[in-house]
Amino acid sequence: MFLERINGPDDIKKLSLAELALLSDEVRDALVFKLSCRGGHVGSNLGVVELTVALHYVFSSPYDKIVWDVSHQCYPHKILTGRKEAYTDPAHFGDVTGYTNPNESEHDFFTIGHTATSIPLALGLAKGRDLCGSLENIIAVIGDGALSGGEAYEGLNCAGEYNGNLIIILNDNEQSVAENHGGLYKGLGKLRESGGSCEHNIFKSLGLDYRYLENGNDTESLVKMLESVKDTDHPVVVHIHTVKGKGLDFAEKDRESWHSGAPFNICDGTPKNGYPKYDTTVHDSLSALMSENNNSAVLTAGTPRALGFVGEDREHFASEGRFIDVGIAEECAVAYASGLAGYGAVSVFGVYAPFLQRSYDQISHDLCLNNNPATILVLLAGVYGMKSNTHLGLCDIQMLTHIPNLVYLDPCSRQEYNEMFRYAVTSRAHPTAVRVPARFRDEETDSFADILRARIHLRGKGAAVISTGNLLPIALECAGICKKEYGKDITVITPRVLTSTDDELLSELERDHSLIVTIEDGELCGGYGMRVASFYGMSDMKVKNLGISKKFHTDFNAEELLSENGISARKIAELIKDNIQEHII
Amino acid sequence: MFLERINGPDDIKKLSLAELALLSDEVRDALVFKLSCRGGHVGSNLGVVELTVALHYVFSSPYDKIVWDVSHQCYPHKILTGRKEAYTDPAHFGDVTGYTNPNESEHDFFTIGHTATSIPLALGLAKGRDLCGSLENIIAVIGDGALSGGEAYEGLNCAGEYNGNLIIILNDNEQSVAENHGGLYKGLGKLRESGGSCEHNIFKSLGLDYRYLENGNDTESLVKMLESVKDTDHPVVVHIHTVKGKGLDFAEKDRESWHSGAPFNICDGTPKNGYPKYDTTVHDSLSALMSENNNSAVLTAGTPRALGFVGEDREHFASEGRFIDVGIAEECAVAYASGLAGYGAVSVFGVYAPFLQRSYDQISHDLCLNNNPATILVLLAGVYGMKSNTHLGLCDIQMLTHIPNLVYLDPCSRQEYNEMFRYAVTSRAHPTAVRVPARFRDEETDSFADILRARIHLRGKGAAVISTGNLLPIALECAGICKKEYGKDITVITPRVLTSTDDELLSELERDHSLIVTIEDGELCGGYGMRVASFYGMSDMKVKNLGISKKFHTDFNAEELLSENGISARKIAELIKDNIQEHII
Repeated sequence: MFLERINGPDDIKKLSLAELALLSDEVRDALVFKLSCRGGHVGSNLGVVELTVALHYVFSSPYDKIVWDVSHQCYPHKILTGRKEAYTDPAHFGDVTGYTNPNESEHDFFTIGHTATSIPLALGLAKGRDLCGSLENIIAVIGDGALSGGEAYEGLNCAGEYNGNLIIILNDNEQSVAENHGGLYKGLGKLRESGGSCEHNIFKSLGLDYRYLENGNDTESLVKMLESVKDTDHPVVVHIHTVKGKGLDFAEKDRESWHSGAPFNICDGTPKNGYPKYDTTVHDSLSALMSENNNSAVLTAGTPRALGFVGEDREHFASEGRFIDVGIAEECAVAYASGLAGYGAVSVFGVYAPFLQRSYDQISHDLCLNNNPATILVLLAGVYGMKSNTHLGLCDIQMLTHIPNLVYLDPCSRQEYNEMFRYAVTSRAHPTAVRVPARFRDEETDSFADILRARIHLRGKGAAVISTGNLLPIALECAGICKKEYGKDITVITPRVLTSTDDELLSELERDHSLIVTIEDGELCGGYGMRVASFYGMSDMKVKNLGISKKFHTDFNAEELLSENGISARKIAELIKDNIQEHII
Repeated sequence: MFLERINGPDDIKKLSLAELALLSDEVRDALVFKLSCRGGHVGSNLGVVELTVALHYVFSSPYDKIVWDVSHQCYPHKILTGRKEAYTDPAHFGDVTGYTNPNESEHDFFTIGHTATSIPLALGLAKGRDLCGSLENIIAVIGDGALSGGEAYEGLNCAGEYNGNLIIILNDNEQSVAENHGGLYKGLGKLRESGGSCEHNIFKSLGLDYRYLENGNDTESLVKMLESVKDTDHPVVVHIHTVKGKGLDFAEKDRESWHSGAPFNICDGTPKNGYPKYDTTVHDSLSALMSENNNSAVLTAGTPRALGFVGEDREHFASEGRFIDVGIAEECAVAYASGLAGYGAVSVFGVYAPFLQRSYDQISHDLCLNNNPATILVLLAGVYGMKSNTHLGLCDIQMLTHIPNLVYLDPCSRQEYNEMFRYAVTSRAHPTAVRVPARFRDEETDSFADILRARIHLRGKGAAVISTGNLLPIALECAGICKKEYGKDITVITPRVLTSTDDELLSELERDHSLIVTIEDGELCGGYGMRVASFYGMSDMKVKNLGISKKFHTDFNAEELLSENGISARKIAELIKDNIQEHII
């Protein structure tokens, strides 16, 4: 066992070239062990094992600095930089996050989870080095999928004018999260086929030096290549060809399914906890739209599975040019959707909330300024969505609701989602975003009255809880406590439209309510509740706004984080009991 | 005169090729006439006169659809599509905006002012055409400067996979707003030198068909080229070489100064209203920083003049690699600044508020999640900033203040700006943004106490006005009216930190105040004032929030728009008189 002796990069340098390959095998075994137990990003990590070993053999981290794009492929790096127990010892599995993290190790330089960031960040480090008079190597490692993001291109363009040491490693495993999309990939294919010598090399067209390595999973070749660019005095792109999922047959064969996943049996890749059941509500709404309306198209920015489109189903609509994957390029997706809607077609862009924020300007300027009736489905927004500080969706309300012309709808159930989706794709009056529930609740009604008005779920008096759709169960439970324990009927409301307040209803509440509690499953600061507080600012109505504190929360339990911020049925009920005016309750 | 007879594209088609050149001259004369009287974007419009004539000769707008990137070069297009009086008749100068505008003409498809948007928007139109079974040509016209933006690249990548008609015209005048920056421009240079035939063509590397035309100001060559790509069944890039400022000697020679400007004398380019005096406060703060600290760098995204850096001064710091122009690439700028600060250098990114919104994700994720102490100077934020709906800065508070770790400082004077700038570039605790006053007010003090606390300008009782820095003069004038006309001393406060509320002060106000009026020079919804309303939600304090209504306001007068939204010294004083509780006033 070599890995036993590796407590940091210095120990790797003591090995022979032949031993590096053996170390790689051990790193891969450790990876497979933990991945099989805990799940995680499978394909990207297995693909960069040899690269990571070679990087730490040739360069001297943390003096030399490696910036991992997205950083979902940093597990081998963590194993080799003093954190191997987090992969080999189940008791320590929880010691590390799934992304680089400067709080964990001096070998990590950024907390990162978004795509296409590594090149400008590394350029900043390189320039910082120059200004501070130091001499280390700065290395960015970026995948082929990430190269579809505009930020990566902006960084490449800038690097093409920079005149110091910067090594950009393009880890080309011929795959994004799903298959790659875009003309770029034809060009990368030609580079691979020609061993890097074809005409029309995008990197050279951007003024960058360039090298190609076909066998990016061979440590010896990698060491040789990296040594050839070490201490370069100018930016150089090192294009290496690797195998995503390397070492696990099933992962090599089905690269999309094995991009990331749950615990599995190593022998055959079958899931340890059974095949997950995915909710098909979003998929079904999109599929029905495309089936019913030939003038409709659905866009994804590199995450088709997020919308439930896989296999034949995806191929069918893609072949018609109506399921469009623009690559990891959210800006393009929003502008593209705006153009489609502007022409008169029906367009829907579905995207995870943390990535939607990459297109704030396009939503405001390209879409809403033009008032084109495109639809945006915002997935996994709020506290029940993703739970890593690198992938938060706690500020969707802050980001979207001040943008003129946009209507942001917030359903509280599967049935209401379907109603709002129908509205969004048929209304030609304005762009609409829908906050897709993180967990669909069912309800029996299919009569939703005017969805552009707030919805009264319970009509009481004294106190009202105004709740985002995701938190309605908590609001209803709170009402139950108030009724059962205090004998009081409170009012429960969901706003349904987050881009405005239902002023008529709010005014009407003043007749027989003295307290409004707003609860939201996103950040408190700048959220929906504060608009309600503002509405009642000159009245006698008391308003308590509850929401998540302003912080890059990470690895949290949703219910606990809500409760810490005062949002639990019991706490809200007590707040109401303590603050309602006696003559009203 | 041909122009007299041109009331739309159909009239152009009646001319001979030779007459097109004469028409171009007349269009240029009309342009020069209006530009000399009213100012505007000089260089870009003069450069595309022949292209625009040729486009409308070859294609049939509005059936064929032209999407202008940034659209600041759309004046010839407006002249040729039924709006010539707005250029030839001073009485009609105000009839058109400076950008494309679907409300003005069926020949305009988007209201656009941001860079790098045309390709994905055009792609959306093209796909919309396909879905709706139509056959027209879709044309995007994009400048070389705009190609530095990631959104353009994302669109090109997507276009490289698209299989329908799309004509992308690269109008290469070898100039951005200032000089171009980035490796891309070496590549474009080689394409120009080789007549489009050099190795490593970025467009071909992205899978796109490509044509080159050297003389992009020759109508006959343009017509021939455009006819060759008309009705193409696949995307094609037509790279044309034009002269920015064509036809005005001084504009051709000094392309940066003549990108846009004020009214001028046609004979020699001297300004009609004298040379404008620019405030040098921002420039001086940056220049002093770079002079005093060798570990510091200043970044701009293609607008160095916005920071006051021109000529030798700019060259000096640029030659040291410390004045860094990343091209029109705000995402890259923020990530780059984060990397610099993360390394330990001092970095400042200065940017106009409307363009800062292009880097929302990078501010949140690349910068603030990493808590790197970079500084962002937000220029022209608020109602006194830019005044076109394409270039609004009314939502900077909404966009920035919910982001964890960020401190957003809001000075009320030149002196306080300098103090806050010093704080921002010396604090290593967190990223800081500074809301640079649109108009610097002077004050005599240079003692600002703790700038991380709110500042009490007047301490009265009964009512308090909490005002953003830009509106302090209105708040003080209001206090004067309250004193003089009602005999009441009110309190006037600027928050100074917009990313939090000064809860200690707000609590303290409850002792002897019953009314708080918040005024802000940005959008009301989601702004600063609502946080104050939320703070007092459970108390007896009355709070009135005043700010700008949620709308893409355009071509407004700042004072009028403020007043329409209740923000004038007189209106606020009356509000206070009417709402303050008698026992306190």
